[in-house]
Amino acid sequence: MSQAIQHNSEVTMTRHEDFLRAAEALRPALSSRAYPPQAVIDAHVDPQAIFGWRAQPVSTPEALYQRELTSGDSFIIDFGSHYVGYLSFACSAVGSPPDAPAHLHFTFGETLSEVCEPFSEYQGWLSSSWLQQQDLWLDVLPAEVNLPRRYCFRYLKVEVKAVSQKFRLRVGQIRLNAVTSASETCLPGTATDPQLQAIDRVSVVTLKNCMQEVFEDGPKRDRRLWLGDLRLQALVNDVTFTHHDLVRRCLYLFAGHTREDGMVSANVFVQPDVIADDTFLFDYSLFFVDVLYGYLQSTGDSATAQQLWPTARRQVELALTRCDDAGLVRDSDDWWVFIDWQASLNKQAAAQGVLIYCLQRAIWLAERFEPELAAALGDRLQALKAAAQRELWDPERGFFVSGAGRQVSWASQIWLVLAEIGSAEQRREIMRNLRENPPAIAMNTPYLRHHFVAALLQCGLRDEAIAEIKAYWGAMVDYGADTFWEIFDPEQPDFSPYGSKLINSYCHAWSCTPAWFIRQYGL
Amino acid sequence: MSQAIQHNSEVTMTRHEDFLRAAEALRPALSSRAYPPQAVIDAHVDPQAIFGWRAQPVSTPEALYQRELTSGDSFIIDFGSHYVGYLSFACSAVGSPPDAPAHLHFTFGETLSEVCEPFSEYQGWLSSSWLQQQDLWLDVLPAEVNLPRRYCFRYLKVEVKAVSQKFRLRVGQIRLNAVTSASETCLPGTATDPQLQAIDRVSVVTLKNCMQEVFEDGPKRDRRLWLGDLRLQALVNDVTFTHHDLVRRCLYLFAGHTREDGMVSANVFVQPDVIADDTFLFDYSLFFVDVLYGYLQSTGDSATAQQLWPTARRQVELALTRCDDAGLVRDSDDWWVFIDWQASLNKQAAAQGVLIYCLQRAIWLAERFEPELAAALGDRLQALKAAAQRELWDPERGFFVSGAGRQVSWASQIWLVLAEIGSAEQRREIMRNLRENPPAIAMNTPYLRHHFVAALLQCGLRDEAIAEIKAYWGAMVDYGADTFWEIFDPEQPDFSPYGSKLINSYCHAWSCTPAWFIRQYGL
Repeated sequence: MSQAIQHNSEVTMTRHEDFLRAAEALRPALSSRAYPPQAVIDAHVDPQAIFGWRAQPVSTPEALYQRELTSGDSFIIDFGSHYVGYLSFACSAVGSPPDAPAHLHFTFGETLSEVCEPFSEYQGWLSSSWLQQQDLWLDVLPAEVNLPRRYCFRYLKVEVKAVSQKFRLRVGQIRLNAVTSASETCLPGTATDPQLQAIDRVSVVTLKNCMQEVFEDGPKRDRRLWLGDLRLQALVNDVTFTHHDLVRRCLYLFAGHTREDGMVSANVFVQPDVIADDTFLFDYSLFFVDVLYGYLQSTGDSATAQQLWPTARRQVELALTRCDDAGLVRDSDDWWVFIDWQASLNKQAAAQGVLIYCLQRAIWLAERFEPELAAALGDRLQALKAAAQRELWDPERGFFVSGAGRQVSWASQIWLVLAEIGSAEQRREIMRNLRENPPAIAMNTPYLRHHFVAALLQCGLRDEAIAEIKAYWGAMVDYGADTFWEIFDPEQPDFSPYGSKLINSYCHAWSCTPAWFIRQYGL
Repeated sequence: MSQAIQHNSEVTMTRHEDFLRAAEALRPALSSRAYPPQAVIDAHVDPQAIFGWRAQPVSTPEALYQRELTSGDSFIIDFGSHYVGYLSFACSAVGSPPDAPAHLHFTFGETLSEVCEPFSEYQGWLSSSWLQQQDLWLDVLPAEVNLPRRYCFRYLKVEVKAVSQKFRLRVGQIRLNAVTSASETCLPGTATDPQLQAIDRVSVVTLKNCMQEVFEDGPKRDRRLWLGDLRLQALVNDVTFTHHDLVRRCLYLFAGHTREDGMVSANVFVQPDVIADDTFLFDYSLFFVDVLYGYLQSTGDSATAQQLWPTARRQVELALTRCDDAGLVRDSDDWWVFIDWQASLNKQAAAQGVLIYCLQRAIWLAERFEPELAAALGDRLQALKAAAQRELWDPERGFFVSGAGRQVSWASQIWLVLAEIGSAEQRREIMRNLRENPPAIAMNTPYLRHHFVAALLQCGLRDEAIAEIKAYWGAMVDYGADTFWEIFDPEQPDFSPYGSKLINSYCHAWSCTPAWFIRQYGL
């Protein structure tokens, strides 16, 4: 997730050194594995192809290694799948001794379009510094080169910007040294349906490539630990790599640097030191409770849960202060809650749903670690649920409404269904109504789409859930996705909320959840 | 010196491991010294200023270090003089935690124009890879950065290509870590004339900045050991840093990798291994004799001279095979001899001069190390001198002529005067005639200009030599040169033989000889 809103950096923060030490002790080892190029390709403009470009193999890597390259030459390599890692290669001179530096330019792409469309024309509103490229001057040849930065790519374009007329270049031993903190072994998939099997495989690769020193949201961008992504990654991790210590480490990281009032940040930086971002989101902070709940469910590690319970409790306390006398979460116009990338979405109702959803889990935790608190929290829960049904339910329309404008959106329905407002039959009816009378305020991200599928499954609408997974994630697979994308609008696959598809993340944690649905629900 | 002619790389070469070991044992230690910025400047187009740009100080480095830089910001630093070395600096983020990489671009200039005129528009015929620039992406801030490549610069332009909207950059502790193998101490200058003192100082800085692991021709370009440059550097070294072991090392390097027939190359690469270039030049190979002669004169190191005498002798033998029955060096149209950057120059006469000049020194060496050879070499010398006077002297014009077209040029007069053809009075008359009836084929490089001054002094025309030094090298000093330039035409200071002044070397060994004239001749 990226956002350009200027936040107040005057927030006073508190470090919790014991938590930070615990997080540091859990820093995972990264395994590294070298992958050779699969093919040398040409790229052709093709309006029918995803993102407008089609690859055509033109030679083997071995043939490339025989080429003598001079100024103006270039080639594109296809590594066959999406990886996160480091580039290494050998470079030597042919002809006279090299009498000038060799100037090379590297462009890395998760998609073919990134290595075909010039970054110089990028006009999006996220920093162009995310675009993956590198200039390199080799003063001494032959050279064995290890580019120092980590990149996220399937495609690599190499351009020989300049050599002298007295020598040519030859490259060899190109390797993508892929890194991950996911273990070599992964629980086997459970699907029997071939399309679901394929979706499951892509989900697992997506999660694996996001598993680094933390659960990153996207290894190309933002390369960072976001609480909303962590929550979904922890689910998929439970049924695949079962690297529970990485979830534990991330919980300690969020708990280790909080706002003075105890609120956990929406995301945390871990280099060079652990620093919580100054972005605080109502829903993301509350999700700390849900991740802790899930961690305890998966591991039975009461000691950790007990240690982190006060942090979780604090998120609920802070969220409850935002409720008005009627028991409703107060709305506002600033960037206070995420829910979805959707400027026109009124987020009050969905936020109400998130609070109720997390409060239910907080009560379960309170019963274990602070039972004297459970009853009071239970009262608040009932008040919030009653207020939602009383103030937000519009029986005429058969939908929940949100905000002063009584807006109807997909997000409001999804989250209040997940919060289990009203009867099971009412909720099933809402889910059907969504299909029959789709609100104009639609779902924009795979992140909200996840919650839609979760709501379907919670309502027992299993076939509808499978159909949605196949229609949405299956479409990405059909487009050739190696990993699931941050953004995907089936009607407009080129869409970017950032003004350029080049800056979209094409391996994004919040899109990897089909594997959880498939395995957890035996789809 | 750079040239784009395609040479035959099929030449068979021979390695002389004992010489290469001797060279390796003499590899000098480099001293490093950190220089802070002197000023932050703005650059303005100014047709009156050298190279078209004028600097204006706008702030102190301390004020720069307080600035908060965002995308699109840039600054130019003036280090106050020319240095060769490495850039280091600190960079930190201001505002929210940095949520995107910081993309910086660095441009290094020996001259102001290099950091002002976009390299993207460079159209010269030398490889653009020489243009000094670097892209940098900082993934983690704060950072202490040491750029890995060596640069050659007084001016540094830093552009903030992209950060996110959530943070700005602050830079600090910018340092130019200058390296040289010249000693801290240098013999004091001898000039009393203030202009000559200034010229002497710039000469010494030029030599110092070219003294690295070898005597480089120019630390920006070609950063390489050329025999023609070495010969002039050894002269200046004798009267300044007296780092005789560096001369010795360079002699071993040339002797260590020769053509199968024993010819030494015009230049030698030393990284990653010692490899002689496949460029062989009649004059440059012969200069091995002169450098060895000078080394023995300066050091009395007979052991080294004796060891290298066979290599020197071999250059003379090979050169003599190029003489015809009349005793004249045969002309040809390929790139066989350097003399000057001058496409229209016929080089036969000058080459005759170089051969005679070096043969004289070979005889002096032969008398010490192979006396039985001296008489025969003396006979060849007399024949060559007689042929020059008989075949090349045109008494009508009062000039030597060259080639089938009987061309009159400055270079032919200079080299046959240095070869001491004809009487002392005849030679003085030629030097006067050059001034009164200047040939159209003029001097193009400071390298040939050096030999002109040398010829004047050899003829006892001391005042004319001083006037020439002041008019030529003094003009560069007046233009603000910190070091002397590879190319300088007082009539056209922007001239480049490479199609762009941006690629000229502005610290060039072959231009550093005024210090030798001044000190050696007590000017």
